[in-house]
Amino acid sequence: MLTAFARFTDGRISRKTEAEELSRVLMEPEARLWVDMENPTAEELKLLETVFRFHPLAIEDATHRAQRPKLENYTHVDDACKHGYYYMVIHGPDAETFKEHLQTKELDIFFSDRYLVTVHEKPMKSVKATLERVAADTAAMMERGIDWLLYFILDHLVDDYLPILDYLEEELDGIEEEALNRPTPEVLQRIAAKKRELLDFRRNIGPQREVIAQLTRGEVAIIRENTRIYFRDVQDHLIRTVETVELYRDLIMGARDIYLSSISNHLNQIMKTLTTISVIVMPIMAVTSFFGMNFERMPAIHSPMGFWITMGVLAVVEVWVFWLAKKKGWL
Amino acid sequence: MLTAFARFTDGRISRKTEAEELSRVLMEPEARLWVDMENPTAEELKLLETVFRFHPLAIEDATHRAQRPKLENYTHVDDACKHGYYYMVIHGPDAETFKEHLQTKELDIFFSDRYLVTVHEKPMKSVKATLERVAADTAAMMERGIDWLLYFILDHLVDDYLPILDYLEEELDGIEEEALNRPTPEVLQRIAAKKRELLDFRRNIGPQREVIAQLTRGEVAIIRENTRIYFRDVQDHLIRTVETVELYRDLIMGARDIYLSSISNHLNQIMKTLTTISVIVMPIMAVTSFFGMNFERMPAIHSPMGFWITMGVLAVVEVWVFWLAKKKGWL
Amino acid sequence: MLTAFARFTDGRISRKTEAEELSRVLMEPEARLWVDMENPTAEELKLLETVFRFHPLAIEDATHRAQRPKLENYTHVDDACKHGYYYMVIHGPDAETFKEHLQTKELDIFFSDRYLVTVHEKPMKSVKATLERVAADTAAMMERGIDWLLYFILDHLVDDYLPILDYLEEELDGIEEEALNRPTPEVLQRIAAKKRELLDFRRNIGPQREVIAQLTRGEVAIIRENTRIYFRDVQDHLIRTVETVELYRDLIMGARDIYLSSISNHLNQIMKTLTTISVIVMPIMAVTSFFGMNFERMPAIHSPMGFWITMGVLAVVEVWVFWLAKKKGWL
Amino acid sequence: MLTAFARFTDGRISRKTEAEELSRVLMEPEARLWVDMENPTAEELKLLETVFRFHPLAIEDATHRAQRPKLENYTHVDDACKHGYYYMVIHGPDAETFKEHLQTKELDIFFSDRYLVTVHEKPMKSVKATLERVAADTAAMMERGIDWLLYFILDHLVDDYLPILDYLEEELDGIEEEALNRPTPEVLQRIAAKKRELLDFRRNIGPQREVIAQLTRGEVAIIRENTRIYFRDVQDHLIRTVETVELYRDLIMGARDIYLSSISNHLNQIMKTLTTISVIVMPIMAVTSFFGMNFERMPAIHSPMGFWITMGVLAVVEVWVFWLAKKKGWL
Amino acid sequence: MLTAFARFTDGRISRKTEAEELSRVLMEPEARLWVDMENPTAEELKLLETVFRFHPLAIEDATHRAQRPKLENYTHVDDACKHGYYYMVIHGPDAETFKEHLQTKELDIFFSDRYLVTVHEKPMKSVKATLERVAADTAAMMERGIDWLLYFILDHLVDDYLPILDYLEEELDGIEEEALNRPTPEVLQRIAAKKRELLDFRRNIGPQREVIAQLTRGEVAIIRENTRIYFRDVQDHLIRTVETVELYRDLIMGARDIYLSSISNHLNQIMKTLTTISVIVMPIMAVTSFFGMNFERMPAIHSPMGFWITMGVLAVVEVWVFWLAKKKGWL
Repeated sequence: MLTAFARFTDGRISRKTEAEELSRVLMEPEARLWVDMENPTAEELKLLETVFRFHPLAIEDATHRAQRPKLENYTHVDDACKHGYYYMVIHGPDAETFKEHLQTKELDIFFSDRYLVTVHEKPMKSVKATLERVAADTAAMMERGIDWLLYFILDHLVDDYLPILDYLEEELDGIEEEALNRPTPEVLQRIAAKKRELLDFRRNIGPQREVIAQLTRGEVAIIRENTRIYFRDVQDHLIRTVETVELYRDLIMGARDIYLSSISNHLNQIMKTLTTISVIVMPIMAVTSFFGMNFERMPAIHSPMGFWITMGVLAVVEVWVFWLAKKKGWL
Repeated sequence: MLTAFARFTDGRISRKTEAEELSRVLMEPEARLWVDMENPTAEELKLLETVFRFHPLAIEDATHRAQRPKLENYTHVDDACKHGYYYMVIHGPDAETFKEHLQTKELDIFFSDRYLVTVHEKPMKSVKATLERVAADTAAMMERGIDWLLYFILDHLVDDYLPILDYLEEELDGIEEEALNRPTPEVLQRIAAKKRELLDFRRNIGPQREVIAQLTRGEVAIIRENTRIYFRDVQDHLIRTVETVELYRDLIMGARDIYLSSISNHLNQIMKTLTTISVIVMPIMAVTSFFGMNFERMPAIHSPMGFWITMGVLAVVEVWVFWLAKKKGWL
Repeated sequence: MLTAFARFTDGRISRKTEAEELSRVLMEPEARLWVDMENPTAEELKLLETVFRFHPLAIEDATHRAQRPKLENYTHVDDACKHGYYYMVIHGPDAETFKEHLQTKELDIFFSDRYLVTVHEKPMKSVKATLERVAADTAAMMERGIDWLLYFILDHLVDDYLPILDYLEEELDGIEEEALNRPTPEVLQRIAAKKRELLDFRRNIGPQREVIAQLTRGEVAIIRENTRIYFRDVQDHLIRTVETVELYRDLIMGARDIYLSSISNHLNQIMKTLTTISVIVMPIMAVTSFFGMNFERMPAIHSPMGFWITMGVLAVVEVWVFWLAKKKGWL
Repeated sequence: MLTAFARFTDGRISRKTEAEELSRVLMEPEARLWVDMENPTAEELKLLETVFRFHPLAIEDATHRAQRPKLENYTHVDDACKHGYYYMVIHGPDAETFKEHLQTKELDIFFSDRYLVTVHEKPMKSVKATLERVAADTAAMMERGIDWLLYFILDHLVDDYLPILDYLEEELDGIEEEALNRPTPEVLQRIAAKKRELLDFRRNIGPQREVIAQLTRGEVAIIRENTRIYFRDVQDHLIRTVETVELYRDLIMGARDIYLSSISNHLNQIMKTLTTISVIVMPIMAVTSFFGMNFERMPAIHSPMGFWITMGVLAVVEVWVFWLAKKKGWL
Repeated sequence: MLTAFARFTDGRISRKTEAEELSRVLMEPEARLWVDMENPTAEELKLLETVFRFHPLAIEDATHRAQRPKLENYTHVDDACKHGYYYMVIHGPDAETFKEHLQTKELDIFFSDRYLVTVHEKPMKSVKATLERVAADTAAMMERGIDWLLYFILDHLVDDYLPILDYLEEELDGIEEEALNRPTPEVLQRIAAKKRELLDFRRNIGPQREVIAQLTRGEVAIIRENTRIYFRDVQDHLIRTVETVELYRDLIMGARDIYLSSISNHLNQIMKTLTTISVIVMPIMAVTSFFGMNFERMPAIHSPMGFWITMGVLAVVEVWVFWLAKKKGWL
């Protein structure tokens, strides 16, 4: 699905997405254009080549998923394109599925001082929010410049990580608590899966720091000095996000320790039970076996009170054993 | 709550907090101003915008908690403000609650060569101490310059970490001792919680080193060369604090090892008890069962002394077993 | 086995591999040459010395396996050779044997702006694919330049890692699952072996990042600016590969944790079984021993219903014990 | 306690410690002075301020213990002092108490090209050795220059770590051996304590490398080029010391592994004992119980040889069980 | 033992080791000299001072063992010596004793563009091989220059590590296999000892990379550009050696994991045996005790087939128990 916003030099606004219209906008140096491609068809992707004349490598990266976050400068390497531009890969959170499987969605961005092209397979909250804002006040928003649009998208994208972090914290608390109280193999499996997800998640969002850092350092001429400070803010939130993910990664490893300790604790508990049972039953067995012996001359056997005295002694011993087990906390 | 100290060029002292008065001070290049906002109302925060004309991003950061420690230079990026200034986020210890939950309090500082604005939600010991000192001798203190005021606050702030470190050391000793002697699941939970707190604490105070380092390196023109050496001293104490927290983090991980080892030790002890009981009871059972057999022709059964001889042999065996268990340290 | 493609200045194509022909191509500055040596004989290797006049050290490295990935500039160090050239060692995946033993194959490359010499012991998919492409359209391919040929080979080589990574992921899933459900010593052995392979694999492909990075940084004059961006793409895929291998290395270490936890779980299960059996049998033993005592005067013994009442009580106790064990999840 | 050595420009030697005498020495640019303050009184410390006019911050650091190793240049920051000087904090080994508690002693040094002031609370072997040497040949030693004196002290100080390292190695061997053979909770406690000491020790001596490195890099003008190579030698010994401490830190962590493994081994041993006892006793119990049954018609019971044949069979079974346990190494 | 090779400017070869002869060689700028001191006497060491006039610190380091690998430039620091020289400490493998105890031998090298002085306590394979080669063709070898001689020695020295690495790999395989199959305390002790050796070994050879790197980077003028590429080759082999040692260090830590897992496995096995025995014996005990009761009225007791029916039921139960244990893999 294609969405386009164009502002011509004379201030005219257009939302047409035909190739000719887009080409016309690109002709005017003072015009501004934003094209968003959501789950684009092959035909729509063709526009990247025919209208924008992007480098084949960049187009290939944009059409194939699973790119690392990166910012590539195509200003000097590309003769086919008359003006300089950047190609950026950034990962936003997958806000729909993170509860089942923690993962990121890729967003590919081409930008120059005249246009912004965003390509993504699935709908992205951050792009959608910016689209709505531009739709509401196209003239003013396009006036502010392409770098400003880019800031809006990235700011939303980074903020969208927050609910995931909150969810993760709850999850971790839950896992830790279960590891402590119900250390079943299922908990172990959950810990392993969560650890894997976090390692993978960290691997995807970690390199974004460097990408955004390039935008804040003034290396990218398209980002004007007054806007740059806003990207510093995005960077700040991103660093906090990455740090929190790293903290969670450390904590999930701690959850495994809790799990192991908890199993050891349970084993101790079981062994205490077994030992206690043995200690309780053994005197009974010893005494009863004793009086099961077939010696002709044995004390107590023939005495009328023998049985009751023996039972009394046994009861006293058992009470003592119970008291001992209680005191040691084994019962 | 707003507190303000102003020294006009003519040496006049003012403690008025009205917007007009503050604006008047800011007019005079040689005047000095310190405004402290404790748990500020929306109206008070408005002053940051109307009187000081700080950058919206900085104001937003100052009004929302949970910022990473940072030092941002707004000298060149901000046209609305006629003079250069810095925005600093620093974390002081939460001296009130650290025994229940180890955490930091955020302090936001705006400073230029003319003014210092401190914003914080909860009362902070370091700010309070500096406020009292300035109240006692306003003229002299304001005379020394804004960088000096900043030093006083940061110096107190870093020193305030010391009682927390002492408390942590005691806590750690206590946890280690309990892990060794009473390895209950509660101790494990305390270790996990403490580790989490320390990781979080470290994450909040670690980046402050870089923030203070910028003040000592002469990058911030507002800090004069003669004052800079004092910030070097603050930096020194801060590094020591961070190193100590890192040491504690390593030690709390060691506490988990002690806990695990201790559980294993207890398990060994239980098993030794169980084995000992078995070894003690088994001869009795074997002998008594033996003489419980119903063979018509068995030795000892019919002999008058059979019973007593058997008992004697059993007693000897038991004494030997007890002696063996004692020697092996199992009793 | 020797394969050669040469394009003379006048556009003539030659596939002859004789030393004289090769020397003739090297004479012409505008001619282009690619010589591939697969499992070369001593005689074929001799050409490196006689025709190309490479540095003895480089030839020695190329003829002995087990070199670290590296890129060495022989432009200035070598007087015997009239033109500058580079010697490169790169490791491709061993696509044939990775299921039994994860390892890499070494590919040695000499290249200047005029020629490309590839030396490898075993057949390599990436070289083969490029050879076929050049064979299909020799003129056009040789026209594009030596750097372009190098890109083709490296691009294929890096892509060839992908099926291995997919296979590894499956393997890891399988190992994790077995560690969880069937923690036999064989699984432990597989984990140890896999970890070793991954450490070794990582050690071989990790340094390649630096090698390729040199090609993308413009340090190698032979790589033209327009081609360089393609090596950036190769670099990107390589980094992703290395990161994935590192992730797998972390996960295989996690598999060991799962294994250990799983063993502990099994031990707990065994102990629960043992304790349950003891708890079930003990009342039977106690009661039956009790009535095995030979006291002359004992209750129930002589009563006609004594036996049945005793049995009833025993049955009730056993039902209760079973219910308890069931509730605790021990059965 | 104050000790002073002064050499006036005219070669006259003085050991007077009065403030006036010291001030007089400082007046002459060619005079040389060393003042050592061991456990100085408040009055003696006053000299740092009145005679040497050191910066208040440096004096404060020197009078309060627990500074991190550091080298601070007070050449440009201090107008009150007419000449440039350095303030250095260095930690020497506590040679008296390291067997009970591994720790360092702080040595504070002020030095310029004219004087050396050493401040320390407890007597230090390295300072004492240098004092004696200067006392023996004051003229020659003072002639060599202040940097030379500094070298002597630091050289001794670093060498004084050697006996501690030797002692630590023996300790570690002892702990490892005990962890293997007698894994009692006391050993675990010793391991934890030693690890803590080593982490702390490492934290104190680690940063000294950077301090000494500054002396060898020519950043400190007071250290002449010919002397600098001697500091390189000190640096070398220091690095070796730190590396050894780091090795010991790794080894003490290994000792914990040995401890844990050793406990597991013991548990296995106990369980083997328990199982063996069970296996030995069980046949006796089974057989004797068997013949304790009250069936009217049972084989063997009434046969004259029944008892002896049964005993024979039991003996054979027991011999076999013993042989089995022996073969499996469980006895 | 002293060995010397000298080539005078006029091409004359001398192998005399007298001080006068050596001094004479050093006089001629175009003469070349190599002096090797194996286990030198105090008198021989005196030559370093009297003939070569090396710096006392360098001589001290060369006469005392246990130096870290380093390269020190004495070109500018030393006025007593008329020409610039370097002092190098390098560690070669101890090829004689590595099977008992993995360690290195120190080799001290002084070199300038005119001479090479090698000092070592024990015979070194690499020095010996170079000595023999020089003895065989002194004129040609000395002609190639001092840097070339140095290369020969270092090349051999690094290659001498290879057999040790091969031996270590075998050792590791052996230890891993034993840890898996026979986890006795002796294996644990071997693992701990090997780990310690590897940590120590790594610590000795690791810093050599930096030493050799200095030779390849063109910082040492004595190494000519054409020779430098050969040192790059030495560096390459050295890095591979260090990487392999690091791999082995990781693997030996893995061996401990295998050991621990293996012990847990054995414990499980023991517990399975114990549980199985209990399960097998318990029905026998229950049944026999049952019929040992002295109730006057009990079923089966007085029936003629009672005994045989009971035995039959017991046999069926036991077969079922055996089958169960077999199925669960506990027997």
